[in-house]
Amino acid sequence: MMKTLNLSGIFPPLPTAFDRNENLCAEKIQFNIKCLSHYDLSGYLILGSNGEQVMLSEAEKAETVAAAREAAGAGKILLAGTGGQSTRETIRLTKSAASEGADAVLVINPAYYKGQMTQQALVSHYSDVADASPVPVVVYNMPACTGMDMSAQTIIEMSKHPNIIGLKESGGNLVKMGEVLHGSKEGFQVLAGGAGFLLPALATGAAGGILALANIAPAHCIDIYRSFRNGDMDRARRMQLSAIALNGAVTSKWGVPALKAAMDHLGLYGGPVRRPLLPAGDEIMRALTELLNDEAVNIYTINE
Amino acid sequence: MMKTLNLSGIFPPLPTAFDRNENLCAEKIQFNIKCLSHYDLSGYLILGSNGEQVMLSEAEKAETVAAAREAAGAGKILLAGTGGQSTRETIRLTKSAASEGADAVLVINPAYYKGQMTQQALVSHYSDVADASPVPVVVYNMPACTGMDMSAQTIIEMSKHPNIIGLKESGGNLVKMGEVLHGSKEGFQVLAGGAGFLLPALATGAAGGILALANIAPAHCIDIYRSFRNGDMDRARRMQLSAIALNGAVTSKWGVPALKAAMDHLGLYGGPVRRPLLPAGDEIMRALTELLNDEAVNIYTINE
Amino acid sequence: MMKTLNLSGIFPPLPTAFDRNENLCAEKIQFNIKCLSHYDLSGYLILGSNGEQVMLSEAEKAETVAAAREAAGAGKILLAGTGGQSTRETIRLTKSAASEGADAVLVINPAYYKGQMTQQALVSHYSDVADASPVPVVVYNMPACTGMDMSAQTIIEMSKHPNIIGLKESGGNLVKMGEVLHGSKEGFQVLAGGAGFLLPALATGAAGGILALANIAPAHCIDIYRSFRNGDMDRARRMQLSAIALNGAVTSKWGVPALKAAMDHLGLYGGPVRRPLLPAGDEIMRALTELLNDEAVNIYTINE
Amino acid sequence: MMKTLNLSGIFPPLPTAFDRNENLCAEKIQFNIKCLSHYDLSGYLILGSNGEQVMLSEAEKAETVAAAREAAGAGKILLAGTGGQSTRETIRLTKSAASEGADAVLVINPAYYKGQMTQQALVSHYSDVADASPVPVVVYNMPACTGMDMSAQTIIEMSKHPNIIGLKESGGNLVKMGEVLHGSKEGFQVLAGGAGFLLPALATGAAGGILALANIAPAHCIDIYRSFRNGDMDRARRMQLSAIALNGAVTSKWGVPALKAAMDHLGLYGGPVRRPLLPAGDEIMRALTELLNDEAVNIYTINE
Repeated sequence: MMKTLNLSGIFPPLPTAFDRNENLCAEKIQFNIKCLSHYDLSGYLILGSNGEQVMLSEAEKAETVAAAREAAGAGKILLAGTGGQSTRETIRLTKSAASEGADAVLVINPAYYKGQMTQQALVSHYSDVADASPVPVVVYNMPACTGMDMSAQTIIEMSKHPNIIGLKESGGNLVKMGEVLHGSKEGFQVLAGGAGFLLPALATGAAGGILALANIAPAHCIDIYRSFRNGDMDRARRMQLSAIALNGAVTSKWGVPALKAAMDHLGLYGGPVRRPLLPAGDEIMRALTELLNDEAVNIYTINE
Repeated sequence: MMKTLNLSGIFPPLPTAFDRNENLCAEKIQFNIKCLSHYDLSGYLILGSNGEQVMLSEAEKAETVAAAREAAGAGKILLAGTGGQSTRETIRLTKSAASEGADAVLVINPAYYKGQMTQQALVSHYSDVADASPVPVVVYNMPACTGMDMSAQTIIEMSKHPNIIGLKESGGNLVKMGEVLHGSKEGFQVLAGGAGFLLPALATGAAGGILALANIAPAHCIDIYRSFRNGDMDRARRMQLSAIALNGAVTSKWGVPALKAAMDHLGLYGGPVRRPLLPAGDEIMRALTELLNDEAVNIYTINE
Repeated sequence: MMKTLNLSGIFPPLPTAFDRNENLCAEKIQFNIKCLSHYDLSGYLILGSNGEQVMLSEAEKAETVAAAREAAGAGKILLAGTGGQSTRETIRLTKSAASEGADAVLVINPAYYKGQMTQQALVSHYSDVADASPVPVVVYNMPACTGMDMSAQTIIEMSKHPNIIGLKESGGNLVKMGEVLHGSKEGFQVLAGGAGFLLPALATGAAGGILALANIAPAHCIDIYRSFRNGDMDRARRMQLSAIALNGAVTSKWGVPALKAAMDHLGLYGGPVRRPLLPAGDEIMRALTELLNDEAVNIYTINE
Repeated sequence: MMKTLNLSGIFPPLPTAFDRNENLCAEKIQFNIKCLSHYDLSGYLILGSNGEQVMLSEAEKAETVAAAREAAGAGKILLAGTGGQSTRETIRLTKSAASEGADAVLVINPAYYKGQMTQQALVSHYSDVADASPVPVVVYNMPACTGMDMSAQTIIEMSKHPNIIGLKESGGNLVKMGEVLHGSKEGFQVLAGGAGFLLPALATGAAGGILALANIAPAHCIDIYRSFRNGDMDRARRMQLSAIALNGAVTSKWGVPALKAAMDHLGLYGGPVRRPLLPAGDEIMRALTELLNDEAVNIYTINE
């Protein structure tokens, strides 16, 4: 029988740390994991979109998984992004991540040949990967990066595979999320891919979220989650609404460079991005600092 | 001081009734209103997208408002769609609807000259209309029909006008809805424009919904709303998820022809659509009938 | 047997003239027609997108056609835009335009119910209109305004109707234009809907163009057309490339307000736009004036 | 002083050959090059979109360049695709391709972080790559695969770099192509990225094309090019229109699997695709065979 994994709660998608020469600094990822270990996070995602995974070599990816596993310890779930453009590369990355200690893999869909990515092609791809994977597979839908949006029906088909246990949905389409939750197998776990729609997703039946914002405001994200679980909808809604602007700044608006800049500002390690990404400029820094000083948002602090 | 209006709860956007020659049948609209009056609906929208308003002459629109007002009685709120492509036409329709008895007007944005519909142009338009309107104005954002999506910032600007009291948001972007609720004036009321995202919208702070589904499953929609208000999130979620397929069938998938066919099937008056809309064909009717027989959805029945 | 009409050459889509109170000034349209009559234009389009037709009442439309017919005289083809959202309105407008003197009608597709505008619905609509029309029908595809793009296959189906004689294609997709020219009936005439792709369209087999730019640079547009016809591809290409920037300014970039401002600047009558369109501001005027002073473009002058 | 390279004429973008286990078969690429060497092609592109480059390892890419160089001989230009998601990977691939014998590199833009791919980021990226490249750089814009479209202004900025000599434009927007040709430096060479708009592109000033169709109908593509250059516009147009359907079948419609199937059908080596691409099924094969039998298209034959 296939293993399953409880994905409830909040996961930060950790950025990958680089030095001034854009070289990998795995120990800085470990530093961030230790800083974030004081929060009641369910685990960590590495090598996701915030992890600049498309910029890393296979060797760098393996090193990142190993380092994160060491720092995370046994009590936290470690998810690793392993989606590539070919099925063979995805399987290779998946096996590598599992052998380095990932508890499950997050697999973004191939999207270069958009016109050929029919439901049949996508379901076959995920099925091949899930057959070969030693650990459970989570489907990753991220239209803002892939330029395509997998349909509810396609994801429902994928959910029939025993080793495909969930979905990270970053598109923010709540109707589709409802369709997936209604049509997929019992126990299929949907995670919100952005803090901007965490509460609507929870209301619809999501198990939790993998949230860039959880890198810099972990307690705030956990508070939305817990308030909802405890039935305190007013608090959940208030926390949700106050989080949207900062979340937008470090995701859709200014992306990974802003997330890393915010982490540096807070005493975590953000560090440089890999080109063609450019570091956050002065204007972004000013706007970002203002958002980080908003008292309605419960931001990470070193002494916390 | 400007009047306000409590828009909480559920409103069906009534279709406009035509006979076999596609001529207006205002008394059939009155018939539908009477059928639906047995439910705890907050009121009715006429001349919305489901009302085929773009197909009606100004005289037909006035006749529709007058007939609906008569049938609705004093206890129900009557909203009327009055948005046209020019500011002058919109003002003319708004004044007419108010004089025929509409309690508020729902104004879709002009969208033909998409490239010129800047924030400045849109805010000026709504401001001119709201200045001239004898009744409160509700902004209507409907990207699936207009081919454009008004931004949160634009709507927040509009909300500053004292006679603009709310938004019907049919795009289903919950992040944007959160931004609007966070940034607009105290008391600005957001209504979900589709049952597919009613519960996520309520969780985010929406006051209610204007829902095509409420024409054929009014009790079901009201149940989602009340369960949420009563804190019964499990029931609300279960009802929400079971409604998505039928709702999709009579909106995004097969549109007004399917909604009218479903109404005919249930003993309400659906009747013909105006061309270029085509009546629902046999295949759609079969799929629709199956959805209407789903026991998880609480469908309108004559004897209820 | 149905009439046909030779649509070769260049047509300006005339703006509709308004006074300071946004009221129709039909004699100013006549003034513009007289100014433009010194050029070898094939005729005029009225009530197109540049004619703000969505902002006009039916009575205003009839008055516009009559005035334009009077001014144009017998030697020029008069095309009138008559597409509405319903088939019945489109037929009514078509009959009115024909009775007021239009030689053919240009029918934009209904696009409010985008989800229901299947090939079947669109072909039925155009067929019904063409059956009822006393004059030939030209299909009008304008994705930037309608938010949808009719496919080559749909247009090829339409072209089978004996009273549908051509297409104004404003989307600028040359592959699709090639498919239409390859698949439609012998003699079906395709017109470029924008000067930005006039020469590529002619190379693919277009008969001519209906070009906003022809209002302010008629000789320049005619020169591209004639150079191509005469086999002087180098001149045609040089003229084509030099026209793109000014054309973009008065179409996709700043639209009808900029076109009217340019006409005022040149001694034609531009005049006000109807709201929600806003008049071209100072910044646009400066950029526009610079473009109008570019010596590579052969601009309208009063004394010409 | 930087080298330049004359990119006039027709280039096929060769598929990458795999065996039944999806392993690279470099000698089959050499076989195809030999088959195509009987035509007056200007050279070959390897590792483009038709070369499944996103599916290949760096070692496989180097092997492919070396093999193609050997087979192509000195008289043909060899272009190699070297764009990756990071600047460092792109530079590494570029240096490798140059050292294995590529005459120029074709660099697709990074597009994963679409929201951050501002003009500044893109121009910096291409500038860094062009600085480091031992051979000339051709910019590659391919919206159907990247999900984003680089603007004319961005490409014009890039064209200022002395080592950036041209653009392969696969988006088919002829207005934009005109803007690029008008605004870029003297001698900047634009190539059509698809046979569906070859003639319109040539009319606008393109130097030639890199055309999937040239793998299976090289003489036909060359004929369009030569007829245009010789001023025989009627023949050019006739050949252009007859090529669109087959070209669409092996590109936008059915993609690389159909291209490979067509090559197998004609006696060239197509062979398997890498998953998640799926082989062309029976229905596609039937439609494809019919298109290949169309006598209006001058198809590759073994004995030619």
